[in-house]
Amino acid sequence: MPVLGFDLGGTKLAAAVFSTDGRIICEETLPIGKKTGKDVGRMIADQTTKFLRQQKLTGVEITSIGIAVPGISFKKNETVWAPNIKGWEEYPLKKEIQAIADHIPVKIESDRTCYILGESWVGNARGCSDAVYIAVGTGIGAGILVNGTILSGAHDIAGAIGWMAMQKPYKKRYDDCGCFESSASGAGITKMAISNLRNTKNYTGILSKKPLENLTAQDVFNAYDENDPIAKKIIKHCIMFWGMAVANLVSILNPQKIILGGGVFGPAVKFIPQIHKEAAKWAQPISMQKVSLEATALGKLAGLYGAGLLALQNSNQLNSGHE
Amino acid sequence: MPVLGFDLGGTKLAAAVFSTDGRIICEETLPIGKKTGKDVGRMIADQTTKFLRQQKLTGVEITSIGIAVPGISFKKNETVWAPNIKGWEEYPLKKEIQAIADHIPVKIESDRTCYILGESWVGNARGCSDAVYIAVGTGIGAGILVNGTILSGAHDIAGAIGWMAMQKPYKKRYDDCGCFESSASGAGITKMAISNLRNTKNYTGILSKKPLENLTAQDVFNAYDENDPIAKKIIKHCIMFWGMAVANLVSILNPQKIILGGGVFGPAVKFIPQIHKEAAKWAQPISMQKVSLEATALGKLAGLYGAGLLALQNSNQLNSGHE
Repeated sequence: MPVLGFDLGGTKLAAAVFSTDGRIICEETLPIGKKTGKDVGRMIADQTTKFLRQQKLTGVEITSIGIAVPGISFKKNETVWAPNIKGWEEYPLKKEIQAIADHIPVKIESDRTCYILGESWVGNARGCSDAVYIAVGTGIGAGILVNGTILSGAHDIAGAIGWMAMQKPYKKRYDDCGCFESSASGAGITKMAISNLRNTKNYTGILSKKPLENLTAQDVFNAYDENDPIAKKIIKHCIMFWGMAVANLVSILNPQKIILGGGVFGPAVKFIPQIHKEAAKWAQPISMQKVSLEATALGKLAGLYGAGLLALQNSNQLNSGHE
Repeated sequence: MPVLGFDLGGTKLAAAVFSTDGRIICEETLPIGKKTGKDVGRMIADQTTKFLRQQKLTGVEITSIGIAVPGISFKKNETVWAPNIKGWEEYPLKKEIQAIADHIPVKIESDRTCYILGESWVGNARGCSDAVYIAVGTGIGAGILVNGTILSGAHDIAGAIGWMAMQKPYKKRYDDCGCFESSASGAGITKMAISNLRNTKNYTGILSKKPLENLTAQDVFNAYDENDPIAKKIIKHCIMFWGMAVANLVSILNPQKIILGGGVFGPAVKFIPQIHKEAAKWAQPISMQKVSLEATALGKLAGLYGAGLLALQNSNQLNSGHE
């Protein structure tokens, strides 16, 4: 029986009705625009209403709803925290959508958790009981599957791998988002580039062609392709950090697969063999031998598919069908 | 109904019959001596036979058997790997003990997994669904509970945290046992001391009173208490590494508790407040706020109690009674 999945991003809300076997029956994506707080909640509520009404016309009955949010879903008090949506510190999204959905179950998870669910359903982690999705975008987080189920932690904050400690001693610049994220996320790459540009005298390379305030991680990747020395230094450092992070997740969790995704993978996909080589230096050797390191198969759709599987698992249709 | 637990260590085999609520009904510990390979297996087999015979005399019926081994228990092929027992590369311990136990179920787990099981049963992790036991002895490993169950990984090698990458770039000396373990385990502390003693000219401190080849981690802790500069430097470095490791497990797993145990905790228990302070610099701030960092409550008995709970969980007596 079909399910409805939502993926709420920073700029848009994607929705899709999925068949039990992971096909998209229909979908719609709307821009969020400048909406904040309750208006973002209303947008999801309105789309829920619309999809539920549609089922009467199409005869496609929705049996469960899953929502991926760009932040944390706290199960105990049924609220959501999303740093980039103003007013979503303790937002009661579950209650709002459940009121509309009535008897249809609603489940909400963090985007990073939905990424690995998506990959495990129809992507590169199919058939895996133990797998990790490392999402490297503006920030860094991980979705983790163990024993075939989501690793949420005691307070739903598991997978905060941006805070991984990988270079002592502690530096002030780790304060806001952690050691790993401050260097190797999209925002980290940009910051490192700006800091390097400021400290490199007489540099006239490709990165100096653009005002510093407009510099992006993509510019750094482009400069790397042009053999720019600053870009090469930064990306080399990132590859080492990405490799160490992969190694740590392999040694601690012994997964079958590690999937690399998010906006940075993207352009960094071509470095996966080098990241693998770096990880292999550090990780528990047998676990490393057995793990497969792969790029996301679903790209920007990983969260939406994950919301679909979340809904499906919560509808108890799968039972022993999907692990 | 009572269960039988075994804890096989490097020098002795401990066995105990436990009541369902975690009391020891009877116990016996035997030295392993110079036994290797099959003779160690036979020792466990003989003890099993003895305890099963005893139950006829005492009327205490054993309903399940759990065994903690100093290595890895591979579930798929039912073999055990234990680096310090000669001939135990792929040792068929399960088959041997099951043959004697007949219809009584036998389950085998790594010692590190049993440590956290023991603490969760009658120690400092009681009532926790998500908890980690960091065992720092000659080596370093972790037993991990998530969602109330053991985290084994895809190939039963999860928790190999001695391989955690925490100091780039990679150094040759990490080859044998990993970055974290090479510096901050009992053996690592000794190695660091020897290397420092060799490289420090005109040192006449307390650590020079003993031949280098007899130096132990305990000597370094003793020297620390005497304000020895080499010992202070090494322990300071260890505290930073232990703190970073705690931080990484907190950020990745979001546990309720992290328990520090093994031979080194022991003498390093007094540094737990400093380790907490170091971890708090690095870790995801909310997860860090919510976690409790504690010393083992069970000391050398953690593995034996863990083997007891392993047996109990495997006998299906607990069902929903213990999570």
